[in-house]
Amino acid sequence: MNKKIVIIGAVAAGPKAACRLKRLQPDWEITMVDQDSLISYGGCGIPYYVSGDVSDESELRATSFHVIRDTAFFNHAKGINVLTRTRALAIDRKEKKVRVVNLDTGVEQELPYDQLMLATGAKPFDLPIPGTHLDGVFSIADLHKAIEIRKRISQGKVSRAVVIGGGAIGIEMAEAMTDLWGIETTLLELAPQLLPRIVDWPFAAMLKQHLLEKGVAIYTGESATTLLDNGEGKVCGVQTGQRTLEADLVIMAVGVRPRSELAKAAGLDVAPWGGIKVNQRLQTSDPSIYAAGDCIAVTSLITGRETYAPLGSLANREGRIVGDNMAGRPSLFKGVCGSFIMKAFERCIAATGISYDTALAEGFNADYALTSPPDRAHFFPDQAVVILQLVFDRATRRVLGLQAFGMMNDSISARVDAAAGLIAQGGTIEDFGLLEMAYAPPFSSAIDSINAAAYVAENLCDHRLRRVDLGRYLKWMEDMATEPDWAVLDLRHPLESAPYVEKYGVDRWIALQYEQIRARHAELPAGKTFIIICNAGTRSYEVQVFLDHLGKSASMVLCGGLNVISRLGVDWLAK
Amino acid sequence: MNKKIVIIGAVAAGPKAACRLKRLQPDWEITMVDQDSLISYGGCGIPYYVSGDVSDESELRATSFHVIRDTAFFNHAKGINVLTRTRALAIDRKEKKVRVVNLDTGVEQELPYDQLMLATGAKPFDLPIPGTHLDGVFSIADLHKAIEIRKRISQGKVSRAVVIGGGAIGIEMAEAMTDLWGIETTLLELAPQLLPRIVDWPFAAMLKQHLLEKGVAIYTGESATTLLDNGEGKVCGVQTGQRTLEADLVIMAVGVRPRSELAKAAGLDVAPWGGIKVNQRLQTSDPSIYAAGDCIAVTSLITGRETYAPLGSLANREGRIVGDNMAGRPSLFKGVCGSFIMKAFERCIAATGISYDTALAEGFNADYALTSPPDRAHFFPDQAVVILQLVFDRATRRVLGLQAFGMMNDSISARVDAAAGLIAQGGTIEDFGLLEMAYAPPFSSAIDSINAAAYVAENLCDHRLRRVDLGRYLKWMEDMATEPDWAVLDLRHPLESAPYVEKYGVDRWIALQYEQIRARHAELPAGKTFIIICNAGTRSYEVQVFLDHLGKSASMVLCGGLNVISRLGVDWLAK
Repeated sequence: MNKKIVIIGAVAAGPKAACRLKRLQPDWEITMVDQDSLISYGGCGIPYYVSGDVSDESELRATSFHVIRDTAFFNHAKGINVLTRTRALAIDRKEKKVRVVNLDTGVEQELPYDQLMLATGAKPFDLPIPGTHLDGVFSIADLHKAIEIRKRISQGKVSRAVVIGGGAIGIEMAEAMTDLWGIETTLLELAPQLLPRIVDWPFAAMLKQHLLEKGVAIYTGESATTLLDNGEGKVCGVQTGQRTLEADLVIMAVGVRPRSELAKAAGLDVAPWGGIKVNQRLQTSDPSIYAAGDCIAVTSLITGRETYAPLGSLANREGRIVGDNMAGRPSLFKGVCGSFIMKAFERCIAATGISYDTALAEGFNADYALTSPPDRAHFFPDQAVVILQLVFDRATRRVLGLQAFGMMNDSISARVDAAAGLIAQGGTIEDFGLLEMAYAPPFSSAIDSINAAAYVAENLCDHRLRRVDLGRYLKWMEDMATEPDWAVLDLRHPLESAPYVEKYGVDRWIALQYEQIRARHAELPAGKTFIIICNAGTRSYEVQVFLDHLGKSASMVLCGGLNVISRLGVDWLAK
Repeated sequence: MNKKIVIIGAVAAGPKAACRLKRLQPDWEITMVDQDSLISYGGCGIPYYVSGDVSDESELRATSFHVIRDTAFFNHAKGINVLTRTRALAIDRKEKKVRVVNLDTGVEQELPYDQLMLATGAKPFDLPIPGTHLDGVFSIADLHKAIEIRKRISQGKVSRAVVIGGGAIGIEMAEAMTDLWGIETTLLELAPQLLPRIVDWPFAAMLKQHLLEKGVAIYTGESATTLLDNGEGKVCGVQTGQRTLEADLVIMAVGVRPRSELAKAAGLDVAPWGGIKVNQRLQTSDPSIYAAGDCIAVTSLITGRETYAPLGSLANREGRIVGDNMAGRPSLFKGVCGSFIMKAFERCIAATGISYDTALAEGFNADYALTSPPDRAHFFPDQAVVILQLVFDRATRRVLGLQAFGMMNDSISARVDAAAGLIAQGGTIEDFGLLEMAYAPPFSSAIDSINAAAYVAENLCDHRLRRVDLGRYLKWMEDMATEPDWAVLDLRHPLESAPYVEKYGVDRWIALQYEQIRARHAELPAGKTFIIICNAGTRSYEVQVFLDHLGKSASMVLCGGLNVISRLGVDWLAK
């Protein structure tokens, strides 16, 4: 029997479900409604359209074979009806009808359904401060806003911009404006770090340092209190608790919330924070109604708990699963790792699973291995350092997450994608140690960076490696009197260590080259706790083991070494 | 109680085991012996040293902190004794002693052991043809050969080279000589394709086409019968069954064999083909003797059967596991996927798991999904097509392997590495469909290429997608009379399809643009079997579903589409 399907929302999850379902059940009658006129676009491409990397917005709405995905396309090519500029007003679950209104004509109609899909997406969170209504203030809510922003920029109307929100979209927009348009851009983030809840602070700090070097002004731990009016209804600045920033353009990117009012009004189960509740087949509490994309609550594959993961990639995967299940082909969406990746000028930052902070908050017996190996064979010309942090549970040895920061190429993708697959399967530290990364010198090391991180995790887990907390160490460098017994044991080449010895004195900064430690360890002073450092941390670990063996066990390794320190923008010698 | 450890072989597995063991048991006395003077080098870097990408051979023997790993380094930094130029002659298992000889002095001695490790590596297979002893004929057996090759090249003594063997090393050496030194290079491979047993023929053919474009002459299915003497004991050419090739330099790269004579003579279990048999703790049939690296037989994680995987990356992982087990820390090596990656000029080719041909030979109910999606968001400027082939078992839906061919960057690593992790865990097509590849437009697509390949596999598995075999289709294009009822249904833009229609006629090449199929399907002639084509294969699948629905089920999709055809070097219009 042919069925009538109604899908509310036509950006990512909706069209994916519609197209999949139409291929499985070609006879079924599918109607998609969307309140916007522009549909089925790659929203994650907006920063690249604003920057000019993508020359026309229509490219974000085109197929890979360069046909625009508009109403006509869905109708002719896919056999799917689309009603644009049409808002769903209410769901009558008993009668199985959706009441919709055409926003141009005001005409209402009822769409009967056998199965309904909610793909209503998310809405930007609006800052509860004065001035958000001003001309020149934008959220990245849809493609129209992006078109208007690009228009203003390309017409030379913007010389100073403020981006409120240091999440991925805010940072990408800041880059777009700074890098390609030369706009003086300031980024504000209320939290003490960029990318809060996504990465741990050292990764946010390395990212911040790179953004600063590229000319983005950044204030973390600082919130906008008022958007300032130029007297003519146009924004001219942003007031924070600490300063006033001039601005012709303000972008609010302070996160999104699920659009679930319709679901709630229809009596469906909705989480207190707004996510529509679904089972693994992506059915809502009404089995005839499915939901997918930015409007739903999903399950974390790491914690097993409810979470929110508004990502275009997940919306597409979920949409396909809704199509399967509507068609009668049982298909499960088990949950999310939360894989994330972002370009930031000449760097790439990425993460999958959960951060160390999140892992602690979730009650794991969490620990982390911070490392800084080369991203490919260290003798290969293009090699560069990559900073990797593996987060794991000490009790179960399960890997909970991986964070990475490195050069802007695909080497970070390789590590994070490999990790995501394994984390989703419950992989342990040992699984990561054996993970068979394809090796040739132009691509990786014989022992890949991800294997090396697993080895460090194993050594931590088994109490062979004792670490100094990075933050604690940085504080001590500011005030060495806080730990009078500590001294750095610097294993690097004398040319590297000499300036530090000169600055801090031989009591605080002891230089003894790695290769000489076995011959000269007797020279080490007694009564000290050594903070053992080198560039990457590997030599330090080896020396710690050796000192332990001699009974000199008061030592801690600076994991990740000076490769991490230098990327944090810390330069003690310059002070 | 302190133990005496002897390790035979000091290139990859040996040093890794020694260093790990020394960290776990600092008191133990470890002696490594190697018949060479150069040890602990990155053998996979040899082609990049020959090319000049790596400027000095010592870089292949250096740590990431630029210290040469020689006898003094192992002694001073690691506390490990190394005897170079020392060959192991025999193992006395009863007395637990290894008899060794110094190759310079001829002095023999006996090294007592509590535990012994065999890391004897592999030896190049010598071609059983006349002339292999001539000056100018090399195998890539060790670093000395590489140094001599580079010396001859850099002194301008080589203008024509022949490489015998179309495996990874042969191809890398051919690239090294052609690309950076401008040497006229010919590659011979006895098998009908390059990279035999590693990739399926379409991937080998795409690679071959690129190598040809870059100026490497290639003859597959052709073997060297004689290496020709210039009358003075120097090689001057290579005779094959079909031709004579002039050459100043000949490189034999026809594979390697495990070096296991010592193990066999000591009565250890050795496979008939030479691999030393080990258990999951990498113990030989004598529990006091471990073995790792290119000399052992390993277990395939895909077939569960014995296989040979002489890879530097595996040698390192295995070495660490030997170190663990010797130290009393139980650690398992469960087997190999066989991940492989290679740079070839401006392209990258990679594979993990097993090929379709291998899967059929191993008795799987094997099938494959050949696809050609973009490697990142199709609207992002740098995007390029990547060719992916997922090999799977129809009965269990388990993924058995992935092959990839694309641009020379790390995007292929990301897919193959993610696949390797999942294949090792027994991942199914559905697991691959849900694999959470990190998405942002500069790195991937909302539905990543690897997810898309899994979707195609699923559609094939569930009989929704019917494919034409690529080889069969190419043959038909050569002689359409073999299948008089076949006709191409070309869904591309008329500007793309028109020249083909003109060449082959409207009976054989029917152009009907994808977007118009629903409106104009009645125009399609009856009685034909349609070979549906487009650029990537995705539109073709959709149209097949639609035609099936109309009852016109005589159709087959050209999976991967013209993106694959064009990379094979096929240009029908030019003929």
